Amino acid sequence: MLKEAIYHRPLDNFAYLSGEDEVHIRLKTGKKDISTVTLLHGDPYEFEDGKWIHSETEMIRSGTDSLYDYWFAKVKPAYRRIRYGFQISDGTETAIYGERGYTDEVPSDVAFLFTIPFLHPSLIFRAPEWVKDTVWYQIFPERFANGDKENDPEGTLPWGSDEPEVDNFFGGDLQGVIDHIPYLKDLGISGIYFTPIFKAYSNHKYDTIDYLEIDPSFGTKETLRKLIDVCHENGIKVMLDAVFNHSGFYFPQFQDVFKNGEKSKYKDWFHLWEFPIKTEPRPNYDTFGFFPEMPKLNTDNTEVADYLIKVGKYWLQEFDIDGWRLDVANEVDPKFWLRFNSELKKIKPDLYILGEIWHDSMPWLRGDQFDAVMNYPFTSNVLDLFAKGEITLKEFVEGITAVLHMYPKPVNEVAFNLIGSHDTPRVLTVCGGNKEKLKQIFTLMLTFPGSPCIYYGDEIGMDGGPDPGCRKCMVWEEGQQDRELFSHVKKLLSLRKELPVLANDSDTFLMEPEDGGNCLAYKRTDGTRAVLVVLNASDKAEKYSLPSEFAGRTGTDLLNGKSSSGTSLALDAYGFSIIEY
Amino acid sequence: MLKEAIYHRPLDNFAYLSGEDEVHIRLKTGKKDISTVTLLHGDPYEFEDGKWIHSETEMIRSGTDSLYDYWFAKVKPAYRRIRYGFQISDGTETAIYGERGYTDEVPSDVAFLFTIPFLHPSLIFRAPEWVKDTVWYQIFPERFANGDKENDPEGTLPWGSDEPEVDNFFGGDLQGVIDHIPYLKDLGISGIYFTPIFKAYSNHKYDTIDYLEIDPSFGTKETLRKLIDVCHENGIKVMLDAVFNHSGFYFPQFQDVFKNGEKSKYKDWFHLWEFPIKTEPRPNYDTFGFFPEMPKLNTDNTEVADYLIKVGKYWLQEFDIDGWRLDVANEVDPKFWLRFNSELKKIKPDLYILGEIWHDSMPWLRGDQFDAVMNYPFTSNVLDLFAKGEITLKEFVEGITAVLHMYPKPVNEVAFNLIGSHDTPRVLTVCGGNKEKLKQIFTLMLTFPGSPCIYYGDEIGMDGGPDPGCRKCMVWEEGQQDRELFSHVKKLLSLRKELPVLANDSDTFLMEPEDGGNCLAYKRTDGTRAVLVVLNASDKAEKYSLPSEFAGRTGTDLLNGKSSSGTSLALDAYGFSIIEY
Repeated sequence: MLKEAIYHRPLDNFAYLSGEDEVHIRLKTGKKDISTVTLLHGDPYEFEDGKWIHSETEMIRSGTDSLYDYWFAKVKPAYRRIRYGFQISDGTETAIYGERGYTDEVPSDVAFLFTIPFLHPSLIFRAPEWVKDTVWYQIFPERFANGDKENDPEGTLPWGSDEPEVDNFFGGDLQGVIDHIPYLKDLGISGIYFTPIFKAYSNHKYDTIDYLEIDPSFGTKETLRKLIDVCHENGIKVMLDAVFNHSGFYFPQFQDVFKNGEKSKYKDWFHLWEFPIKTEPRPNYDTFGFFPEMPKLNTDNTEVADYLIKVGKYWLQEFDIDGWRLDVANEVDPKFWLRFNSELKKIKPDLYILGEIWHDSMPWLRGDQFDAVMNYPFTSNVLDLFAKGEITLKEFVEGITAVLHMYPKPVNEVAFNLIGSHDTPRVLTVCGGNKEKLKQIFTLMLTFPGSPCIYYGDEIGMDGGPDPGCRKCMVWEEGQQDRELFSHVKKLLSLRKELPVLANDSDTFLMEPEDGGNCLAYKRTDGTRAVLVVLNASDKAEKYSLPSEFAGRTGTDLLNGKSSSGTSLALDAYGFSIIEY
Repeated sequence: MLKEAIYHRPLDNFAYLSGEDEVHIRLKTGKKDISTVTLLHGDPYEFEDGKWIHSETEMIRSGTDSLYDYWFAKVKPAYRRIRYGFQISDGTETAIYGERGYTDEVPSDVAFLFTIPFLHPSLIFRAPEWVKDTVWYQIFPERFANGDKENDPEGTLPWGSDEPEVDNFFGGDLQGVIDHIPYLKDLGISGIYFTPIFKAYSNHKYDTIDYLEIDPSFGTKETLRKLIDVCHENGIKVMLDAVFNHSGFYFPQFQDVFKNGEKSKYKDWFHLWEFPIKTEPRPNYDTFGFFPEMPKLNTDNTEVADYLIKVGKYWLQEFDIDGWRLDVANEVDPKFWLRFNSELKKIKPDLYILGEIWHDSMPWLRGDQFDAVMNYPFTSNVLDLFAKGEITLKEFVEGITAVLHMYPKPVNEVAFNLIGSHDTPRVLTVCGGNKEKLKQIFTLMLTFPGSPCIYYGDEIGMDGGPDPGCRKCMVWEEGQQDRELFSHVKKLLSLRKELPVLANDSDTFLMEPEDGGNCLAYKRTDGTRAVLVVLNASDKAEKYSLPSEFAGRTGTDLLNGKSSSGTSLALDAYGFSIIEY
């Protein structure tokens, strides 16, 4: 038994409350090393004749990554207290694993075991209920639609007349979004995530000048109010982008510091190293990256924290937004986010708080800071296999398994899954222009647990390289849109709405990718309905042998309505099927 | 290379801030599997020609437990941001380990690496400065000294006339403690931890009736004020016991519920399952353990939380106490402790908050709840080897290494180390009455990092089995005290005061216990002074071969003032030496 590979530590992703009276327990063991794991669990205080009274629950193998197998069980402790250990067997050897190591016999001293000492409701991760049923659409307002020529900034280029550059403008605005709500409604999305809309210098608006004003080239507060009203009338949630890590260079408080140096009353609003302030060769103050135009805000200063909280509350209270996406959230003081979460959720308990974090985010996802983070680890696994073909199906399954086991299940249910954004090359471009690959990727993302997000234009086949290439003007001429792709995405959205089971968190993939096949398959079920999704990741037609539970049964392919039966499934290169049984 | 054994995850004990601009990084690898580990670290945003700019720092092996080696490095990131990975070599194979797994070459995509995104001061664990220089003395007030016969409860037995029982009384009180401050001053302790002193039913007072009154058999608020004044005048800190997990059965609010059931206005102060309330065969309400006399308080009820916060503040503001020890702290809602910490530290920033948790307490020791927990994992390792001889020296070193790597170093520096308490058999009894063993154990505890605590009477050789046996009346007749033991403990306390270096956190033991020797040795140094501590854990005289850095040098045995030289050290059975070089 490879004891060195075995790992468990409460709480976080290994042991957590899934409800008022239920806990989920996970264990990590060496890949293919262990044959059975039994969870031994009981109350910390129940003994009979000096022996600990406990129950045994078989754990299921919930997945495997490159080095480890993962095991899962859920239990309901009678008195909301639990001590537990793992009886692990590799077929020849059996050992009991607890906080203090390994033993042969069930310990009478519960100090040997792991514990969740009491199931306090405050330990439950509670994201807003609506999030897991939401599909987002990300809009970069300067490039979505120009609905009001009056507010075009100086030098605005004709829509789509040129390549996007870091400093050109095409006149996109909020009225443009209002005008195209019918389009979004037709597509079927249920939430819009807007990159920043507040007064700023650049076209991307991540360099805020005034957090309490709409950028004049985007419209007015009245336009935003109208936009949010229209969205809500159409069942569409609205999420804005809070850029609180740094302000813009032209933020008046920073300008004051820049001009008045040490005498500025705002000198403690930033992290200044010395005076006078300079921007060359590198800024002598903390910035986002090394960009002088993005001076880092000092949220340790109560005045700054108060100001940003006020901003957060203002758009919530005055405009009834539904979510805040937090830019560069990992570099902002967690203490600030705790306060942000606490004060804003008091106002709107079902506010969705989404952090921009690209890496392992467990410390931010304990329920007191964010409801979700942008799931880029999902993105990179998906693109590496289905778009680039740089990894094998086996590696993909292992990678996604690792991602799914990095967080508690309730966190996965509201993960913000994306296949591209304003910060990455367009997914179609990553696919080398192959639309079949793109359709397959949409199929995967929209049958996966989480709260997926479509980057504007991906659904009609827009392309583009890294920023600024990925920020082209939205194509509105239907003849230039890929309407077949649009229909596919629309169909997937409507299936996801009709069959919420498609978004269920199921940890297991329906094959051992070691088998060498090229088809990814997974089952989504709520106990009554069962849907099988199969994706052929190869560039050749494949025959997928159905697992025994489906072989020989007749199902319906939900994408084309055709009946499906037999013991295998024929798939074209990059083909896919969603079959309900 | 045993990749399955390798583990790292920021933050907690694996990567944390040790100061405003410094981080500690640790790694776990398979025992004896890896020969070198190099930390690759740099800013997330510094690249040259697409390559990540980084530094390399050799990690030192900071310890080994039964299955793993631990590696340590500290670094000061230039811009208070860090991305890092581990270049690991086992002599034949080298791999770079990061958040996304293993690679052969330094990745150009920093997403592969681990990160502490920004070194916010709020992430620094800050316990009060005074704690690591404090040696505590635990007093169980009913059994320490009877200084005022007037307040003796009915049926009080003559002092020490009988064995302690769960329900007998001997008249100990606060005046008794005041009377014996000179004794404690002579011994040299610098803090007193009192088990509960508030009005309660039992002799242990863990079943509170009134949180805002001193138990009448212990004295009055004036007595407490006088006691705290005397302590403070003598440089002794005072810590009280907050029993907030549960009240006593005779707590008026519970009595009201017990009598009025569903109609009681206090029904939401507890966790009641049904009405009427009953105590047999088991209570039908949440309790500590299954004790009906200890109904669990519902801190999720704001009224209750407010009340307990008021209690916490009252004794702090009105009596200027220095610490709160929190009973059954692991079963109380962490949300409550966050508030407790935040509100009380606002009043007294250097208040010490000590949680009673017997198991792995990392989630409570992130700096926002407790400063320390009662370090029972230390206790059990120490007693298993030095008192009971149930484990080998090798197992002891491995066990202590695991404990020291379970938490960040700054946490270890203020760990509440104990070798017994009112909840465990007396250490002398665990030693089978062997005073030499006991002296050795005191030597270990008092040369170990942390904030050690002596249970009243252990220093004069009192014995006793499990509760209530361990709660005998303090022996005050000098003829019946073991004065030699007392002198030894006193000497150790004075050494620890003169040489704070004795309490330095040093992760490494000065021998490979695999060598089969019976002597535990460790070095304490602050760079200028170096002290070597050697303990012979066997029942036979032993010769300890000095490590090369000390062999042949002349040092001074601090316990007897004698000079020490040569290449080895002769130790009696259970002998010990503290030698300064």
